[in-house]
Amino acid sequence: MTADPAINPAPRAPKPGDGVVISVDAMGGDRGPSVVVAGMAESAARNPEIRFIVHGPQDELSRLIGRRKALAGRCDIRHADDVVTMEDKPSQVLRKGSGTSMWSALESVRGGEATAAVSCGNTGALMAMSMLRLRKLPGVNRPAIACLWPSMNPQGFNIMLDVGADIRADAHDLLQYALMGASYARNGMGLERPRIGLLNVGTEEHKGRAELKQANELIAAATESGQFDYVGFVEGGDLPSSRVDVIVTDGFTGNIALKTGEGTAKLVGTFLKDAFANSIMSKFAALLAMTSLKRLQKRIDPRRVNGGIFLGLNGTVVKSHGSADATGVSAAIKLAFTLAKSGFQDRLAARVAQGAAASFETGESGGVAS
Amino acid sequence: MTADPAINPAPRAPKPGDGVVISVDAMGGDRGPSVVVAGMAESAARNPEIRFIVHGPQDELSRLIGRRKALAGRCDIRHADDVVTMEDKPSQVLRKGSGTSMWSALESVRGGEATAAVSCGNTGALMAMSMLRLRKLPGVNRPAIACLWPSMNPQGFNIMLDVGADIRADAHDLLQYALMGASYARNGMGLERPRIGLLNVGTEEHKGRAELKQANELIAAATESGQFDYVGFVEGGDLPSSRVDVIVTDGFTGNIALKTGEGTAKLVGTFLKDAFANSIMSKFAALLAMTSLKRLQKRIDPRRVNGGIFLGLNGTVVKSHGSADATGVSAAIKLAFTLAKSGFQDRLAARVAQGAAASFETGESGGVAS
Repeated sequence: MTADPAINPAPRAPKPGDGVVISVDAMGGDRGPSVVVAGMAESAARNPEIRFIVHGPQDELSRLIGRRKALAGRCDIRHADDVVTMEDKPSQVLRKGSGTSMWSALESVRGGEATAAVSCGNTGALMAMSMLRLRKLPGVNRPAIACLWPSMNPQGFNIMLDVGADIRADAHDLLQYALMGASYARNGMGLERPRIGLLNVGTEEHKGRAELKQANELIAAATESGQFDYVGFVEGGDLPSSRVDVIVTDGFTGNIALKTGEGTAKLVGTFLKDAFANSIMSKFAALLAMTSLKRLQKRIDPRRVNGGIFLGLNGTVVKSHGSADATGVSAAIKLAFTLAKSGFQDRLAARVAQGAAASFETGESGGVAS
Repeated sequence: MTADPAINPAPRAPKPGDGVVISVDAMGGDRGPSVVVAGMAESAARNPEIRFIVHGPQDELSRLIGRRKALAGRCDIRHADDVVTMEDKPSQVLRKGSGTSMWSALESVRGGEATAAVSCGNTGALMAMSMLRLRKLPGVNRPAIACLWPSMNPQGFNIMLDVGADIRADAHDLLQYALMGASYARNGMGLERPRIGLLNVGTEEHKGRAELKQANELIAAATESGQFDYVGFVEGGDLPSSRVDVIVTDGFTGNIALKTGEGTAKLVGTFLKDAFANSIMSKFAALLAMTSLKRLQKRIDPRRVNGGIFLGLNGTVVKSHGSADATGVSAAIKLAFTLAKSGFQDRLAARVAQGAAASFETGESGGVAS
């Protein structure tokens, strides 16, 4: 099934010097490709530097893109018949693999045509495929997914990692998460010297699991080489706090915390709506407070913090929420663009290599276990 | 230092048939004994059946209690000079131990004078001392702390355990948490057949750590003997949901989730205040919406869900928040009273013994690992 060139003139492929190229998997999200293309159009309208390679069924994508003026001449479509569904297990995905839009989106990053990839698809499948095709950065044992968390900090967000790439993490993995998270905060948020905290059940040094005590020492010893400050152990209540910028944890704990936070915010939101719907008086008040309530909603809007970054691979991959709408997709694309533009990938690779060397030296001198 | 009997006439000691006796540690909270006594007075005013044995410095307590009419003739004071502070480590506490109000409060439960103990003190110390003095229930390997979580359920709350008694839990511990949590939901909330969920990073059966997969099978096999329904794996976002009543997890994950939820609710509350303080119009709206906002505040008020229950000991212990005010202390006392009145302790012991036997049989038949 190929496109009719009369109806769908092949868009001009992006070339070097054309700006920043983002590879977009148009399929696999809960709302289908039209929402992804709408998000791309939002980004393109605001950002003259951005270009796309977009992956999925040629005909459908040509049609959707053809309707968006902002995207004219800025997209290169790569045909892919297959879609990774939310129900697919990572093992199945790797078998059917190469015919999918997800695989194709990663290939554009692998081949150097695009600087970063964005997908709304199945997280487990995307991580498994990214590991297979992009491979881990030298020196990284476990890649991580970093998310943004609304916070009291001036930048408005804190970073937490890992939120679900791997359910395990030993002390060295946690050190690497600290280095990668610091690099992300520097390049994605412009924080020159990010403050790192290690998530635990108390802030006292004697608390928590053995790997956390060891990671506590490893991270404390890496502040100079990693150019970050270390605030020590932090608790669940510190995730939105202004005493820390980056929270390091294993993927099991991070995923539970992320979903707990989302669930709590949603619950309070529901209660708030109930409260205002309760009486004529409160409905009137809600009308008066509309602007303020909208500001509040914007501040805690999960769409604004849409985009989990896969860290520790040879290439930048942004995972957008499966249920993201156009605004959410656009936020994920913006994040990919910001990181691509900052040269994040090369800086991260350098940082990890340096950290691995420093950690090795510390280990050699016997300082780690002491 | 003994009390002058002329100024502080010894209150009549509670006797059998006097109602339900709660042992209260008046010391160790952040706000001192006056707040604890105020909370006792709130409970006493509402509940004619309740009586107290209260532990701390005789003179100070006599004075504080003497001022409260609701407490007249309903308190027995037990003098204790020492206080466990929030900074004390569990190991130190066990050494200085027997002179403290906390120790004394547990002794009243141990000796059978009171049915349940309430303390606002140091959680780690209270758990260590409870383990030492009350001992674990036969068949229980790790006791747990259960907390209440605001939820969409008709009862208004879900139960989560363990939230910090022990940072480890194997599959059999998780099964016991399910049995204990079900018993607590039945006796504390009146749910005849509570629905249990096991906290994980996804709801699919292949996900998560090995001990979770094993616990998943153990709990599924115990629904009849434990008289509960099992909904399988739940995620962080399900903690406030109406599809589950009791969420089972290890104490590390549970503690992180609890504090993350509290932190998120606090953040949204702060944002909400900011939103309403933003303009004259929104301040006016806030005035109009006062009743609704107060209702909301009450619904998510942590003081109303004050009280972590220690489960798996020979005696009921309720841990109140260290920073609880009188309303919070009163909520914790109410919880202790409800459980004491329901005969919870004996029912829990029977349930755990039965569960241990059932689990052993399942293990014998080779059904556990299959």
